[in-house]
Amino acid sequence: MNRRTLLAAAPMAAASGAGTAVAQGSAAPERPAGQAPGFYRYKVGDIEVTAIHDGFAPRALEGFIRNADLADVKRAMAEAFLPEAALPITFTTLVLRTGGRTVLIDAGNGDAGAPTTGSWMGNFRAAGFDPATVDTVIVSHFHGDHINGLRLKDGTAVFPKATITVPEPEWAFWMDDGRMAAAPDATKPAFAAPRRVFGPIAKDIVRFEPGREVVPGVTALPAYGHTPGHMAFALTSGGARFMAVSDITNHPALFVRNPDWSAVFDVDADTARQTRRRMLDMVAADRMQVAFYHAPFPATGHVAKEGNGFRFVPVQWTPAT
Amino acid sequence: MNRRTLLAAAPMAAASGAGTAVAQGSAAPERPAGQAPGFYRYKVGDIEVTAIHDGFAPRALEGFIRNADLADVKRAMAEAFLPEAALPITFTTLVLRTGGRTVLIDAGNGDAGAPTTGSWMGNFRAAGFDPATVDTVIVSHFHGDHINGLRLKDGTAVFPKATITVPEPEWAFWMDDGRMAAAPDATKPAFAAPRRVFGPIAKDIVRFEPGREVVPGVTALPAYGHTPGHMAFALTSGGARFMAVSDITNHPALFVRNPDWSAVFDVDADTARQTRRRMLDMVAADRMQVAFYHAPFPATGHVAKEGNGFRFVPVQWTPAT
Repeated sequence: MNRRTLLAAAPMAAASGAGTAVAQGSAAPERPAGQAPGFYRYKVGDIEVTAIHDGFAPRALEGFIRNADLADVKRAMAEAFLPEAALPITFTTLVLRTGGRTVLIDAGNGDAGAPTTGSWMGNFRAAGFDPATVDTVIVSHFHGDHINGLRLKDGTAVFPKATITVPEPEWAFWMDDGRMAAAPDATKPAFAAPRRVFGPIAKDIVRFEPGREVVPGVTALPAYGHTPGHMAFALTSGGARFMAVSDITNHPALFVRNPDWSAVFDVDADTARQTRRRMLDMVAADRMQVAFYHAPFPATGHVAKEGNGFRFVPVQWTPAT
Repeated sequence: MNRRTLLAAAPMAAASGAGTAVAQGSAAPERPAGQAPGFYRYKVGDIEVTAIHDGFAPRALEGFIRNADLADVKRAMAEAFLPEAALPITFTTLVLRTGGRTVLIDAGNGDAGAPTTGSWMGNFRAAGFDPATVDTVIVSHFHGDHINGLRLKDGTAVFPKATITVPEPEWAFWMDDGRMAAAPDATKPAFAAPRRVFGPIAKDIVRFEPGREVVPGVTALPAYGHTPGHMAFALTSGGARFMAVSDITNHPALFVRNPDWSAVFDVDADTARQTRRRMLDMVAADRMQVAFYHAPFPATGHVAKEGNGFRFVPVQWTPAT
């Protein structure tokens, strides 16, 4: 009844004439700020996976792909309705809850990335996690956007209790002083990042070989080329199988669609291309759910063969976890 | 230093031998519960749009599409990596902040939907909104999943201050007593829902014709067929254009891909099919961002022609709003 009184002045029947159908405004509350927190939960058997978003970095298209014409790259961007100016490369890590433990796969940019990154910790906490209780961090490879989140620029260890585990061949490559000394100047920062992050705890680092079950249900698989020791991770729990493919591709709209294209980030382009085709073929044939570090958030879905390449089909968001 | 002491017992160098690389566990915190809240913000010029998720309802495939073989429907489901058993139909409404006003387009299932729906109010509040301050509700059509959120089953008006605006031809059809009396029993509940929701405030309802600017920047467009007065809404602000296409399709993986398929929910299948093709052609040609009520959350993206149908390309999630 109160409502009727309140709205007694509202026009009845069909609106007509000049102006808008509803003209009366009201004092509105402050504009609510911000996006929903960037985390997404799903299950792989009994393993609870939480994708944690760490923002994005815009990448100019010029010079990004070694072996594709810029016009073709722009066409692929347009087909995916991505921006014309620059590719927003996103970063999404995984948190696993398994066997009573909290396990990270990769750690994001920390405070060392582009200004549009660095939201990882806020999203991690919004998902109900505490960095002080992380048990294990599994590192896929030593690029800064995967490891800088382990240590702040001021030297603070972000996960003080965690055992840090890394691929043995990745360690062997990047921590080799002779190789760093021989590297061209442009490549030297790539050697500096792991030294900054891992140097203070070098003796405590656990190194794993390909084929190793790093924690129960999480097996490292060789996925070389992007970097010399780059690893993917097979998750198995009950009958469920899942693959965290790490950086076998950069943005799926470009490199799942065109698996022979080589981003400048690939250390060994030919090996990376072979790895990319081999793993995409496998997950497509098995219709296996996958996570890509650089797919749009929540960065998980499936892969299907299409033409000479593949297409990435994101999962349908669901509140059921 | 503390960290080194803590991890002194951790294995050094490459893990080898039996068991997993990292075997030691720890007392973990309680499993953090739940999914991130189901809201997503984006801009159309100066209009702030917030998509609000209202859960999903599983729909058996048998009998769902009038003019497609079940085998073809199952094939389309498999191509989209959707479940074999049933289609999860999702519900996503829009909240607009424009000109100091809070405007809803549709209101979700309220407390009258499937048990897996009803999360709308929680997501709406999580996005920083208050139902008491909603100024206007624009209704696309009178199906229960769009209007039941306006009034609880106990009769409570959910948006007590809001002006409720509805399509004039929709009102004329569903509120016609003679038409309800003549309807087959199976169709009568579709007439009951708008009477329950709108009956107590019938004289205060604002009815709009197609072509009408309902609130500044939001113009109703005829999109008949799904229901007799079903409307889409063009949003314009500055140079930005956007289309809320409401229910011109149900799930895009089925009906954007196969626009001639007719879901049983379409009141006039032929008209609905013509509307669907006309509007999909238009938004594809214009590369216009769209929102589908029944697309997977956040239910916004673009449409491109593909073969005899179209493909829906979801937006890339971004924290930037």
